[in-house]
Amino acid sequence: MCAARSGFNHKKYAPVEPVPTFTRTWPDQVVTEAPLWASVDLRDGNQALLEPMTVEQKKQMWALLVKIGLKEIEIGFPSASQLDFDFTRWLIEEDQVPEDVTIQVLVQAREHLIERTFEALKGARRAVLHVYNSTSRVQRERVFDLDRESIAQIAEQGARWVQSYAARYPETEWVFQYSPESFSSTEVDYAVEVCQRVMDIWQPTPENPCILNLPTTVEVGPPNHFADQVEYFCQHLPNRESAIISVHTHNDRGGAAASAELALLAGADRVEGTLLGNGERTGNMDLVTLAMNLYSQGIDPKLDLSNPDEIIQVCTECTQLPIHPRHPWIGELVYTAFSGSHQDAIRKSLRRQGDDEPWQVAYLPIDPRDLGRDYQAVIRVNSQSGKGGMSFLLERDFGIQLPRWMQLELAPVVQAASEGIAGELDSQSIYELLVGHFIRANGPLKLEGYRLDHTDGAEQLHARVQLEEEALSWEGEGKGAMGAFLNAINRALALDVAVIDYAEHAMGEGTDVAAAAYVQMNVGGHRVTGMAVDTDTVSASLKALVSAINRAEVALVVNQTTQA
Amino acid sequence: MCAARSGFNHKKYAPVEPVPTFTRTWPDQVVTEAPLWASVDLRDGNQALLEPMTVEQKKQMWALLVKIGLKEIEIGFPSASQLDFDFTRWLIEEDQVPEDVTIQVLVQAREHLIERTFEALKGARRAVLHVYNSTSRVQRERVFDLDRESIAQIAEQGARWVQSYAARYPETEWVFQYSPESFSSTEVDYAVEVCQRVMDIWQPTPENPCILNLPTTVEVGPPNHFADQVEYFCQHLPNRESAIISVHTHNDRGGAAASAELALLAGADRVEGTLLGNGERTGNMDLVTLAMNLYSQGIDPKLDLSNPDEIIQVCTECTQLPIHPRHPWIGELVYTAFSGSHQDAIRKSLRRQGDDEPWQVAYLPIDPRDLGRDYQAVIRVNSQSGKGGMSFLLERDFGIQLPRWMQLELAPVVQAASEGIAGELDSQSIYELLVGHFIRANGPLKLEGYRLDHTDGAEQLHARVQLEEEALSWEGEGKGAMGAFLNAINRALALDVAVIDYAEHAMGEGTDVAAAAYVQMNVGGHRVTGMAVDTDTVSASLKALVSAINRAEVALVVNQTTQA
Repeated sequence: MCAARSGFNHKKYAPVEPVPTFTRTWPDQVVTEAPLWASVDLRDGNQALLEPMTVEQKKQMWALLVKIGLKEIEIGFPSASQLDFDFTRWLIEEDQVPEDVTIQVLVQAREHLIERTFEALKGARRAVLHVYNSTSRVQRERVFDLDRESIAQIAEQGARWVQSYAARYPETEWVFQYSPESFSSTEVDYAVEVCQRVMDIWQPTPENPCILNLPTTVEVGPPNHFADQVEYFCQHLPNRESAIISVHTHNDRGGAAASAELALLAGADRVEGTLLGNGERTGNMDLVTLAMNLYSQGIDPKLDLSNPDEIIQVCTECTQLPIHPRHPWIGELVYTAFSGSHQDAIRKSLRRQGDDEPWQVAYLPIDPRDLGRDYQAVIRVNSQSGKGGMSFLLERDFGIQLPRWMQLELAPVVQAASEGIAGELDSQSIYELLVGHFIRANGPLKLEGYRLDHTDGAEQLHARVQLEEEALSWEGEGKGAMGAFLNAINRALALDVAVIDYAEHAMGEGTDVAAAAYVQMNVGGHRVTGMAVDTDTVSASLKALVSAINRAEVALVVNQTTQA
Repeated sequence: MCAARSGFNHKKYAPVEPVPTFTRTWPDQVVTEAPLWASVDLRDGNQALLEPMTVEQKKQMWALLVKIGLKEIEIGFPSASQLDFDFTRWLIEEDQVPEDVTIQVLVQAREHLIERTFEALKGARRAVLHVYNSTSRVQRERVFDLDRESIAQIAEQGARWVQSYAARYPETEWVFQYSPESFSSTEVDYAVEVCQRVMDIWQPTPENPCILNLPTTVEVGPPNHFADQVEYFCQHLPNRESAIISVHTHNDRGGAAASAELALLAGADRVEGTLLGNGERTGNMDLVTLAMNLYSQGIDPKLDLSNPDEIIQVCTECTQLPIHPRHPWIGELVYTAFSGSHQDAIRKSLRRQGDDEPWQVAYLPIDPRDLGRDYQAVIRVNSQSGKGGMSFLLERDFGIQLPRWMQLELAPVVQAASEGIAGELDSQSIYELLVGHFIRANGPLKLEGYRLDHTDGAEQLHARVQLEEEALSWEGEGKGAMGAFLNAINRALALDVAVIDYAEHAMGEGTDVAAAAYVQMNVGGHRVTGMAVDTDTVSASLKALVSAINRAEVALVVNQTTQA
């Protein structure tokens, strides 16, 4: 018996508990409007990082969340972390919270933590006070060793504390939120009972509802099971009209977005999630995915996701986690077609797409230009040989190691040239296409020289540039030479410029070889790539930036306010 | 009007077409057994790669698919690619297909392609001939400019060709498969009509069924909508009992796994997908995710996923695509708990977990050891300061840049030591813990010296090692010094050893600085990490391997069959 239970053996696991019989209606529903969105990037997302965000990173993430239109933002667990406490104080004291945005904080149902949480929120205009305790059978029996009544009393006691401390801070408009944590593994009747007892204390009304947040703390069943749990809960909760039903889904079975979407059919009003799905273990539901799912159905997502590159940049920087190339809606490969028949179908349907009719293009669920992207038709060069491709030739003969995003952009250029000569291109021709296409370091912007000072972890860059043949002197600072140059450019020009991805390598071996640098940037809201080759590695990287900016073909106007 | 339609604007999109009214039963169903699995890694997955797999990579992927238990494997599009044709011939002529495995090939409904496909399959014992044409309104109206009748006739004609060519090769046991491509955007009544007309030609029976494969070629609706489409299709198809209903889902809305799982409730018998979800755009459904979803419900997945590291290694090598750290079930972060309350709950429930009862552990949906992983409790060191963490100190004071998988493993070691002294550790102490924990290069296996020959893209390594103080001489070849050493180890020892991840960097600047190398390996089915520091970068990398192998603490037995 023991042997059979160790190792890979499904018999160790029990299926998820069925929801009691009830009259299910959600499969007949259709989502027609966006839910209330709540971001938990700065709390759930942050607590799942190996290196939690610094204060600077929290500010950066906050600014992004506000910019794309989040109206409820859980900013941390101030009673458990001094950093979160200080960040909460900064938001309030520095008046960083816009009129239409509400901050939310999480706290366990314990008095000293609740007391400290209210201290953190002193002076807030409006705040969601989110209290929770864990209600599942495993948590009751294996973790807390308490029966259902005792666990329900923890929730009630927490609700009372929240209510009485809130009364001490009447200058703040309070919204109370309760989560039966581990709801997905809680008997749904019991979850209703606990929530009802919390509501009996808070006495919410349809005009002043509380929030009841139902998490798949661990995703243990398929999305339809969660939808059943949510609809059962909604149908059986007395005073349903006095509660905003919120869901908070995790991705253990790969179903976080689907579970949230089906929960909307089942009656949920509000969805908690994070940008790109950062969060404990497999992550939280990705706000971008669900919002774009609605967008593609003609529903106003109530979030401005028109610049996903900025979202990717801030998120990857703050979380130190990559985004997968096939990430729904915004991964680097998702608007790329490799197959000839797909490309042909896309071409034909794009040609027939009228301006005044719904989008009807094969293989492209939305117009990639909505997100600042382009449709990429990649035809492989010499693919038959398997090892004779463009990238292989460039590496073998020139020591060029193109990152994938460069390959994706070069491939159609090579293909077009190859069709022009009706034959195969040799590696010299491919190299010339590469250089001709991506290197544009000599104007309108040109780097003449630079001086780099390294002091205490930051670089100071003094760059001598020519802009439309006028000699200028730019200053910037940042992490590394590129960071400093980027800072200099953003200061000097009336243009938003950011780096999305970057690669550099030596071309060959030894000490006097050239370096090749590649950069993928967002210049004024559009993706563009650049490249440079130089014997000096720093020059190569800075000139790659210059190439990308020149290739963007946008007006390079000097920013009058910051120039002396 | 024009301006409003460009840019980020949901009004351009129409919602997915509703399924006609019918008596829906799938929400009352529960999955109780694994479906028939079919892999499309070598076809759909391969065709979505920038650099398609080489013959060697196809062989490697094939071997993996067979090893984990796939019984139906779509191996390519032999009429469209000489590489796929040759690979098909190799499988048949070299007798590579096990008795219980069936190969499958894809072909469009065009005669010369079908003819060529049958040539590729000549001599196969059993094969699935998968023919398709596109049936959605967009494809009919915008791509083919044909009405419903004409598109149905293409399907019929394809079915006839398949049938008549099959008759010429009676030595093969043929299974016919038809896909109404773009099924997810096809009017479901019309999809039924087309499939029925194909079945009228093939005349399948319950004993010799055909396969009808319903793809979300583009995922355009939520999973419940797809389930409705599938159940409607099953209910309205005459001779339902003579068809195996298969689904093939893509991940455009992040719902590929959920759509397939709900399709099983709706009557599907068979699921096509790929390992880790490689495939066009956002990818295909991930076989690992859905199989593990079933596994965690106590269902025999009928796939052996006990060594996900091998799957990750082969897939990332063949596709050149990374796996996300939060990938469901097998990403590097999914069994890691950072929060103190989660760690406490896990500890308590692990302590109470009996051998003879279902798994009941908070926050761990399965026992990570089933997959050769361990639960990781990561407590941050000095997290309050935000910038005083372990990794920061190691980088600032020692130039050490730990990859995340090293940080994850070091953190609990540092934490334990920190608790031991009831205070904060300085960077020197953390460095000593790092070195003491991960460097074990002096036995039982020890690298004494090596000679490396580089010839024509491959490295030949001659290594002088000591094993339990016995001097040995090992030879190996491979890509790079590490690849060659790995090959030497696998030849010399009766042990499966593979590299999962690797990182190396110079410690500081200049030419005479030391290099630090880190490696994450799978040694005999278990993950283990190793590290080394050396003035020679190649030595550092090889010694990191040695450290990892020594740290695995498995018997290092010389492989008698390969030793002279």
